Amino acid sequence: MSTADLGLPVDVPSTALFTDRYELTMLQAALKSGAAHRRSVFEAFTRRLPEGRRYGVVAGTGRVLDAVENFRFDTPVLDYLEREGVVDAETLEWLAGYRFRGDIWGYPEGEVYFPGSPILRVEGTFAEAVLLETVVLSILNHDSAIAAAASRMAVAAGGRPLMEMGARRTHELAAVAASRAAYIGGFASSSNLAAGFRYGLPTIGTSAHAFTLLHDTERDAFTAQVESLGRTTTLLVDTYDVAAAVRTAVDVAGTDLGAVRIDSGDLLLLAHRVRQQLDDLGAKDTRIVVTSDLDEYAIASLAAAPVDAYGVGTSLVTGSGHPTCAMVYKLVARATSDDPRAPLLPVAKKSLGGKTSIGGRKWAARRLDEDGIAEAEVIGSGPVPPDLTDHQLLAHLVHNGEIIGREPLDTARTRHLTARAGLPLSATQLSRGEPVLPTEFA
Amino acid sequence: MSTADLGLPVDVPSTALFTDRYELTMLQAALKSGAAHRRSVFEAFTRRLPEGRRYGVVAGTGRVLDAVENFRFDTPVLDYLEREGVVDAETLEWLAGYRFRGDIWGYPEGEVYFPGSPILRVEGTFAEAVLLETVVLSILNHDSAIAAAASRMAVAAGGRPLMEMGARRTHELAAVAASRAAYIGGFASSSNLAAGFRYGLPTIGTSAHAFTLLHDTERDAFTAQVESLGRTTTLLVDTYDVAAAVRTAVDVAGTDLGAVRIDSGDLLLLAHRVRQQLDDLGAKDTRIVVTSDLDEYAIASLAAAPVDAYGVGTSLVTGSGHPTCAMVYKLVARATSDDPRAPLLPVAKKSLGGKTSIGGRKWAARRLDEDGIAEAEVIGSGPVPPDLTDHQLLAHLVHNGEIIGREPLDTARTRHLTARAGLPLSATQLSRGEPVLPTEFA
Repeated sequence: MSTADLGLPVDVPSTALFTDRYELTMLQAALKSGAAHRRSVFEAFTRRLPEGRRYGVVAGTGRVLDAVENFRFDTPVLDYLEREGVVDAETLEWLAGYRFRGDIWGYPEGEVYFPGSPILRVEGTFAEAVLLETVVLSILNHDSAIAAAASRMAVAAGGRPLMEMGARRTHELAAVAASRAAYIGGFASSSNLAAGFRYGLPTIGTSAHAFTLLHDTERDAFTAQVESLGRTTTLLVDTYDVAAAVRTAVDVAGTDLGAVRIDSGDLLLLAHRVRQQLDDLGAKDTRIVVTSDLDEYAIASLAAAPVDAYGVGTSLVTGSGHPTCAMVYKLVARATSDDPRAPLLPVAKKSLGGKTSIGGRKWAARRLDEDGIAEAEVIGSGPVPPDLTDHQLLAHLVHNGEIIGREPLDTARTRHLTARAGLPLSATQLSRGEPVLPTEFA
Repeated sequence: MSTADLGLPVDVPSTALFTDRYELTMLQAALKSGAAHRRSVFEAFTRRLPEGRRYGVVAGTGRVLDAVENFRFDTPVLDYLEREGVVDAETLEWLAGYRFRGDIWGYPEGEVYFPGSPILRVEGTFAEAVLLETVVLSILNHDSAIAAAASRMAVAAGGRPLMEMGARRTHELAAVAASRAAYIGGFASSSNLAAGFRYGLPTIGTSAHAFTLLHDTERDAFTAQVESLGRTTTLLVDTYDVAAAVRTAVDVAGTDLGAVRIDSGDLLLLAHRVRQQLDDLGAKDTRIVVTSDLDEYAIASLAAAPVDAYGVGTSLVTGSGHPTCAMVYKLVARATSDDPRAPLLPVAKKSLGGKTSIGGRKWAARRLDEDGIAEAEVIGSGPVPPDLTDHQLLAHLVHNGEIIGREPLDTARTRHLTARAGLPLSATQLSRGEPVLPTEFA
């Protein structure tokens, strides 16, 4: 994949500067000490789920693969690092030839995860693996936070479609990644054209209050919209008086009107009233779309209301109270010398104030009960017990620097549905609780 | 400014797709009805501050100007819109020639704001101004949220330097904007190399626990780091035993050691102990840097501790509990016809459930008391009262499509210090409260 294929609206010539300065200074010092070439294993994991959440959702893996492929130090970047004195000449020369040539294993995208799950395992020399820390965590922490919120909203929405409309509430490029993650978590579409362009997501949207206010009357506005976009469009009915607007809408578009959208007020009450009014007017197939600061709880509270689709913005793109996942990227094993055949030694920071890590290159598996429902997330660094070999979670994503784990977005979306359906029923309770699976260290 | 000057690591060929689909469908319908060419005024404002906050901080204005300049529909974008059937041929043709040719006024970057403050005012035809909604809000909502958190942390830190280290906790490009906004809010530096490259911010960082774990002993790691980075480096002392590490650090680097960093545990207790130990070892000028899930409250709690600098990550890049600002972009006035001389009519959505807007093209001024301290944010759409003409807040940023409001980042940073200092003293209380200035509609 060339960088040009990464697509508009943003062409990423290199991802190498999405990096904390200390990665490069560590590299310099390790090149000098010689330890830089020791075979090393880093793992990305989280010590806890956001408070009250029952499961996490892996998202961003596909973007991580793009970032790894495009992680290289071009001349403008090297010039910058030299000019600023970030690293010395020897390190610059090493960086000029940098390509990740190691291996990456990870939970496939859309899979669920729990505290301690080794979501991504990066293996290579210390030098090549340490450099990926920041960009790997940026992507996984952001995208997984959004996907987790999306998944809860999808549960709350039952079978009704969810539309992602949060671009205006988050950084303009975070918004594109958020649309992607929301799709994995179960959203049907996005208002974000950049997400449509970049990831082929279905896009939606018709009009805002400004369009009604621009015209001399609401009738003028509805007429203009229907003439241009057709009778199946969605008319926004809460600029002035909802009941009057619904009357005008059906009068202008006829009973074939596609949908009406309500963006303010008591949505539960309004949805019932508008449904009744539409039915009375003969517009029995006209759908009702609601969009007003919805989150999973508001969506759940509308379960019994005659609502056909939900548009969600702020709470989705901010992870519904948890905009990041607290994933860390830790050295868990390294060779005892720079001999490629040297054995791996498990390593871990000593616990101080709860920042626990468990050393060793790990496998992970999900143990099922006799009904085939998950009962534990099992993690270990020794041999995999025979009963778990078929239930392992880590997939091989990069082999000797070559990306082998790319897949269509719909694969991740379907995987998430399957993974969530395999959890105990209490996983989909919206109320606060403990992680629905215990993590066992074998 | 050419798009190439926008800089690595991200070259933005066009910002036009950072747009919700409904902007384009509204455009199409308005082109058809003819209303698209009515002169229009849109304003970005927020109905409330995040709960408990005393003031908001405007950030992102400079990025908005870049986005406006690069908002154009190139061939790949037009092809996409055609392929997906987003808009019709007439609209595509109009988009192909699109450049924003109107005027933009706004609160200058770094200024403080309050509920109702018209932070940005975009004037042009409906067609040209409506298209900017999403990208304007994405930038202002994100960047202002970070700057507000940064400002509170800067207040809590007193004169001690703050280092931004949050890249790994947010989207990789949101991280770059976050570093920029944090600088405006009062941070001194960033770990993010992309932010250094793109915005010239000072970058910092030396090593992580992985570097210590990579070596056979902590002494080996410290020796490698000091040999490579010099005695003035910062050594991370909490991988194993802090007291032993501090002893080793001074033994290896001598009493000229630049700093030690503590990244876990009881920072208040450890800072005191480490300071005592460093002093006892003769390393009286060795500084202590702390970095462990700090927010403004944790920083404030360390005010009496012998800490020389703070590194802040998660809580900064997530806006310390408020990752977005709830700014909206509303049509507040429009001409009664497409005659350029037609008068402007104030417009506003009817209130339903608190989504209040006040129509009319607005000015804003900050009224001072007799001591020169701000006492009210005054907003109006009629003539500016004579006593307020010298205290107006809106600066002219774009004139007939030409960007005239660019300024160095340090200007915004200094402006924020001045603006905050001009607020009543209670503005800088960390505790929850009401906005420190009332908003008055004249």
